[in-house]
Amino acid sequence: MRTQDDVKAAIRALGVETASWAFANSGTRFKVFGQPGVPRDPFEKIADAAQVHRYTGAAPRVSLHIPWDLVDDFSALAAHARDLGVEIGAINSNVFQDDDYKLGSLANPDAAVRAKAVQHHLQCIDVLHATGSTDLKIWLADGLNYPGQDSLRDRQERLAESLATIYAALDDEHRILLEYKFFEPAFYATDIPDWGTSLTHCLALGDRASVVLDTGHHAPGTNIEFIVMMLLRAGRLGAFDFNSRFYADDDLMVGAADPFQLFRILHEIVSQDAHRPESKVNFMLDQCHNIEPKIPAVIRSVLNVQEALAKALLVDPDALVKAQADGDVLGANAVLMDAYNTDVRPLLASLREDDGLDPDPIAAYQRSGYFERIAEERADGAQAGWGA
Amino acid sequence: MRTQDDVKAAIRALGVETASWAFANSGTRFKVFGQPGVPRDPFEKIADAAQVHRYTGAAPRVSLHIPWDLVDDFSALAAHARDLGVEIGAINSNVFQDDDYKLGSLANPDAAVRAKAVQHHLQCIDVLHATGSTDLKIWLADGLNYPGQDSLRDRQERLAESLATIYAALDDEHRILLEYKFFEPAFYATDIPDWGTSLTHCLALGDRASVVLDTGHHAPGTNIEFIVMMLLRAGRLGAFDFNSRFYADDDLMVGAADPFQLFRILHEIVSQDAHRPESKVNFMLDQCHNIEPKIPAVIRSVLNVQEALAKALLVDPDALVKAQADGDVLGANAVLMDAYNTDVRPLLASLREDDGLDPDPIAAYQRSGYFERIAEERADGAQAGWGA
Amino acid sequence: MRTQDDVKAAIRALGVETASWAFANSGTRFKVFGQPGVPRDPFEKIADAAQVHRYTGAAPRVSLHIPWDLVDDFSALAAHARDLGVEIGAINSNVFQDDDYKLGSLANPDAAVRAKAVQHHLQCIDVLHATGSTDLKIWLADGLNYPGQDSLRDRQERLAESLATIYAALDDEHRILLEYKFFEPAFYATDIPDWGTSLTHCLALGDRASVVLDTGHHAPGTNIEFIVMMLLRAGRLGAFDFNSRFYADDDLMVGAADPFQLFRILHEIVSQDAHRPESKVNFMLDQCHNIEPKIPAVIRSVLNVQEALAKALLVDPDALVKAQADGDVLGANAVLMDAYNTDVRPLLASLREDDGLDPDPIAAYQRSGYFERIAEERADGAQAGWGA
Amino acid sequence: MRTQDDVKAAIRALGVETASWAFANSGTRFKVFGQPGVPRDPFEKIADAAQVHRYTGAAPRVSLHIPWDLVDDFSALAAHARDLGVEIGAINSNVFQDDDYKLGSLANPDAAVRAKAVQHHLQCIDVLHATGSTDLKIWLADGLNYPGQDSLRDRQERLAESLATIYAALDDEHRILLEYKFFEPAFYATDIPDWGTSLTHCLALGDRASVVLDTGHHAPGTNIEFIVMMLLRAGRLGAFDFNSRFYADDDLMVGAADPFQLFRILHEIVSQDAHRPESKVNFMLDQCHNIEPKIPAVIRSVLNVQEALAKALLVDPDALVKAQADGDVLGANAVLMDAYNTDVRPLLASLREDDGLDPDPIAAYQRSGYFERIAEERADGAQAGWGA
Repeated sequence: MRTQDDVKAAIRALGVETASWAFANSGTRFKVFGQPGVPRDPFEKIADAAQVHRYTGAAPRVSLHIPWDLVDDFSALAAHARDLGVEIGAINSNVFQDDDYKLGSLANPDAAVRAKAVQHHLQCIDVLHATGSTDLKIWLADGLNYPGQDSLRDRQERLAESLATIYAALDDEHRILLEYKFFEPAFYATDIPDWGTSLTHCLALGDRASVVLDTGHHAPGTNIEFIVMMLLRAGRLGAFDFNSRFYADDDLMVGAADPFQLFRILHEIVSQDAHRPESKVNFMLDQCHNIEPKIPAVIRSVLNVQEALAKALLVDPDALVKAQADGDVLGANAVLMDAYNTDVRPLLASLREDDGLDPDPIAAYQRSGYFERIAEERADGAQAGWGA
Repeated sequence: MRTQDDVKAAIRALGVETASWAFANSGTRFKVFGQPGVPRDPFEKIADAAQVHRYTGAAPRVSLHIPWDLVDDFSALAAHARDLGVEIGAINSNVFQDDDYKLGSLANPDAAVRAKAVQHHLQCIDVLHATGSTDLKIWLADGLNYPGQDSLRDRQERLAESLATIYAALDDEHRILLEYKFFEPAFYATDIPDWGTSLTHCLALGDRASVVLDTGHHAPGTNIEFIVMMLLRAGRLGAFDFNSRFYADDDLMVGAADPFQLFRILHEIVSQDAHRPESKVNFMLDQCHNIEPKIPAVIRSVLNVQEALAKALLVDPDALVKAQADGDVLGANAVLMDAYNTDVRPLLASLREDDGLDPDPIAAYQRSGYFERIAEERADGAQAGWGA
Repeated sequence: MRTQDDVKAAIRALGVETASWAFANSGTRFKVFGQPGVPRDPFEKIADAAQVHRYTGAAPRVSLHIPWDLVDDFSALAAHARDLGVEIGAINSNVFQDDDYKLGSLANPDAAVRAKAVQHHLQCIDVLHATGSTDLKIWLADGLNYPGQDSLRDRQERLAESLATIYAALDDEHRILLEYKFFEPAFYATDIPDWGTSLTHCLALGDRASVVLDTGHHAPGTNIEFIVMMLLRAGRLGAFDFNSRFYADDDLMVGAADPFQLFRILHEIVSQDAHRPESKVNFMLDQCHNIEPKIPAVIRSVLNVQEALAKALLVDPDALVKAQADGDVLGANAVLMDAYNTDVRPLLASLREDDGLDPDPIAAYQRSGYFERIAEERADGAQAGWGA
Repeated sequence: MRTQDDVKAAIRALGVETASWAFANSGTRFKVFGQPGVPRDPFEKIADAAQVHRYTGAAPRVSLHIPWDLVDDFSALAAHARDLGVEIGAINSNVFQDDDYKLGSLANPDAAVRAKAVQHHLQCIDVLHATGSTDLKIWLADGLNYPGQDSLRDRQERLAESLATIYAALDDEHRILLEYKFFEPAFYATDIPDWGTSLTHCLALGDRASVVLDTGHHAPGTNIEFIVMMLLRAGRLGAFDFNSRFYADDDLMVGAADPFQLFRILHEIVSQDAHRPESKVNFMLDQCHNIEPKIPAVIRSVLNVQEALAKALLVDPDALVKAQADGDVLGANAVLMDAYNTDVRPLLASLREDDGLDPDPIAAYQRSGYFERIAEERADGAQAGWGA
């Protein structure tokens, strides 16, 4: 059993990366509901992200999305982040919102469109240079809506070639994080629909390409922690996009839909020591706060990851190994459940107090007056959304 | 076995209702791709819908959506439709795109919002009066994203009360068509998620309330033709929203994803004589043509329904009943498959020629120059979308 | 907020009904693994069930399955149960293991088979008389493997007629509990696949017919607590078959796969006061312990239900109602999560000590030597299975 | 466009491999319904399989299952097959029906059990030698029912080591065909749940290891033809286990549940020329005929594969490539649908007549009196089942 101090130290070492777009407006295809105080530019998004770190002490980096977060001077943006106590994290490319990408980007049948999409990624590598980030994160909307619409096989060849061109432009300290998704926005076939496809491309690219596992991007019933284990075994789990879902890619707060699943995922992580920074697994949030206030929702999400990690750290490894070796099905399961059923909130409150933080980050944020201030200050101007 | 003439007569009698919004721009939460020639107002939408009827002879009505299709003078719109050879079909209410509806409409916890949503439906009943339509079609986005967000039970009581108020305002010849949907845009709980819930409300309302079955609104693996049968048995199948899907509510062209399922649905329809106009089942399309040209996609969809109906009409009922009574599993299945495997395109081409139509409606439309004309004429002005 | 004493009293009042067949061998279609000490007859099954009640104080009844539990003298069996501190619960009919039922039982196309299946249910009503049980529980395997195999509609008519005959034979204090199941063993269509179909039949039968909700009998992603709410609202939730699942009808221990879902179900139960005995909701287990020892697995299952109930009772109703009325999405969700995140094991241990039980029922059972005794005593003779 | 003669030649070249166990009794966990005339030993199974080839001319090989098909003299069995016009196909190992395998076989935590399971595979390689078969097909039931029951990661290491030992024992002309399955009989985690895991192991083993794709072994909504394409692209599609499903691993007749999906799979096959024998893709059936007569069900299945292949061969490749290159979504889809909507039964009847076969294989079989003969001849003795 880990000591309480060891557990605390391990939790302290895990930083959750927030996403700039989580603070902007988002919604479904039916409606985007605006919220008061929503940021109007990347600087304001980072200011909001910094609030999450301020109250949790556990969200030290912010992912950007290009072009949503395009600014004239990225080093100014990076300095702004540092001033607020956070750093720029992964740079996400966006090749799904330009009219040219209607039939795909890196796998488009038209070579000119593919070249444009590759070029966009080279621009993102420039942002890596300007911000000091090392992670180029790629999620593609590429796919087909109708059988026959394009050649499934040819699209893989085009995709492989486009990715190779991008990979060749990376610096040594850079890496590609390649995401997969079961469906949406393509409804018949997606060009990278599963971890097998993403891993196949990463293996072909080289050592500096790893898979992104978005917890909402799987078929119903998929055992996600199994995939976590397989990717760790292959040395290719680059990052998580954490969120939760009941049905499809619902992008709800992580831990909200199935907290036991989140715990099982963290148990696989802890079992392979991948919670440690040296593992280079980037624990990111990728969520849409469509109806709930965004900053406290992100705070809650960070707390949920911490709680799941704390429980995973409380699993008694010796008792587990013994019960497993004995073929004691109920006993081994009970070791896991004992940890899961523990109320870890007092431990996390104590950790925060150790670190000079308020034990209740959401209450502290709400008392701070920050929301009231931004709601007033940002009343004018266009709110940022997924396309702004 | 039905004679070829009987089959033709039955197909001729079935009119598929198109939807005005299918001709406007639509997309996913990630991107709406505009298309050339897209209508700018309800009159242009109806003009496009009339093209579908012109070449198929099988799409005599157009559903409207309020407020998307709000016009000052609905009798003028109805006259416009009649001039083009079509009629106004069902009137769809929309209570999901106003900021007030963020937490629901007819089931909202706030009585003022519920009253506003009820009032919108009364306005839709005015449109029924103005257009001569009889069908008030209700799909609600109401639901919850997070457990605990609201009381599941209280929402049902509020919903029942709101629906009762609307029902009381109907004329005798009017009816409510109440749709259900498994999920989206609500991600934890939907207030009318399944046919059981919709039927429960319809039974409470009275004889003039029936269920709408959207073929994309079910859990994975759901046997849709079974539900068709149950609703017909209960005398409460009011309408279809036809479309097709591989995953969720993909809203692809009907028959594109699983043509055998469409055939099985039509087989249940034909088995209970519900393809006849007297059944009052409204066969509507509800689709999104996100990447394909809209008018030919709707034509293709109408043809797909006709082909499935033709195959269902070709099932040999005597052979089927005999094999079923004998417990001949393979034989009974073979009777169905024989009809399904028949190429009915020649029969439908012949029917069209009988009726003075081109045997190939899509080719005829494409030769007509209509698309080129609207692409030019409608180059200026704002294209209609789901919100316009 | 309920006081701790109120919570304890409410937990004390809820008895979980165990199933005789859970103590017999079970498996998948691939293999049934036998276990040492498995009962050889209904008397031994009841003895095992009594062990569960002995250590939990919360499992006072045992369901029987006919013909698996056919005995010459049911009053002797009932007396045997009473001697061991438990009572006979629901009587389950079995019309899926006789060769005549290959194409169905109550819905079979052959009138003679239907009559035989009805007759079996009349025999079960005799068992109600002999044992003093009031619940006739009906789960049907009826359905089709291939489209066209039989008429979906005719099967409903036959089913309705068969059920009406059985219903007519009930005494006033009896009731029918009618179960639904999404699929398996029928793979194309199931005759009672969902709560809508079961409820339709119950409404047609009369007041003494209610629905059984088996938590494993739904499509992927189905919101089960919503159905619980709807059935309670209709006054027709007769019973639960508790178990848990990751994929299909896995029949794992309740609470093992998704403890948060179990909590949400119990929250709906508590919200409508249906945990009280007066609600007449029968909380039953229906599980297969294929690889784990059966008695401790059933004890664990009872504890899991108690823990979920305890958490549901700890939800602060005033805080919840207030947050919901305020449209405070995060706040309302947090009220629920606060209860869920509470470690209720100390409270339950305290309750057991209040009642003179060991605070750790599984440890107490394991120390008792019962397993070693039955493993030895029952070494000879044929072990009971699903078919024995 | 291929000429009719080319289409016929391609169909003629594709042999579907039947499975010996398909002719034996099978069922669900609830009940195995026996059928008259079911084989009592491997020789009779092969005799039945030979009937399928006799009437279709398209089923020249029969897979065996060890130990179900253990005989003293495998060369006698192979000679018996040749006498009846068929050959022995793949050899399937079975490590899921021995009590020792309750917690797994090649991945079992107990080294002695793993050694036993490896030894069983070495015995299967002996059968390869004795029968002249080249394909050792491995499907494992290995997995967990409960979280924590065993280490997901350690199981992969054990599995990899066991597979390597087996692989090392292969002759040069042998190959391993490694199957994956989403779930069942394990309900929490399966050790080879998806193509990514199977491919990972095959790549580690060497060139002579390929993946088996069973069409029923996927999560709901999985795009199976995409996986076909990816495995062909990787040069690792070893074999199909054809069957069809509505829900889980239903093992219905191939093409019965979703004939359009089967066509799309064959379209990917034809697109990459993998229907030719040189591709070494083994097209096998793996089905359970629980309620329908087995021999005609297998004949129907072979016909369904032929019909899907014929339709795939009728896709106009030039028109398809052109429409795809033009970004003509509807046009490209229409090229596919034109082929799918063609009634290919006359073409196949003509091919059979060319080859001296009855144009209607099922009718010819039924007229032959074979069933009546075996029903009488095999009335005594124990029928073969999954375990016999």
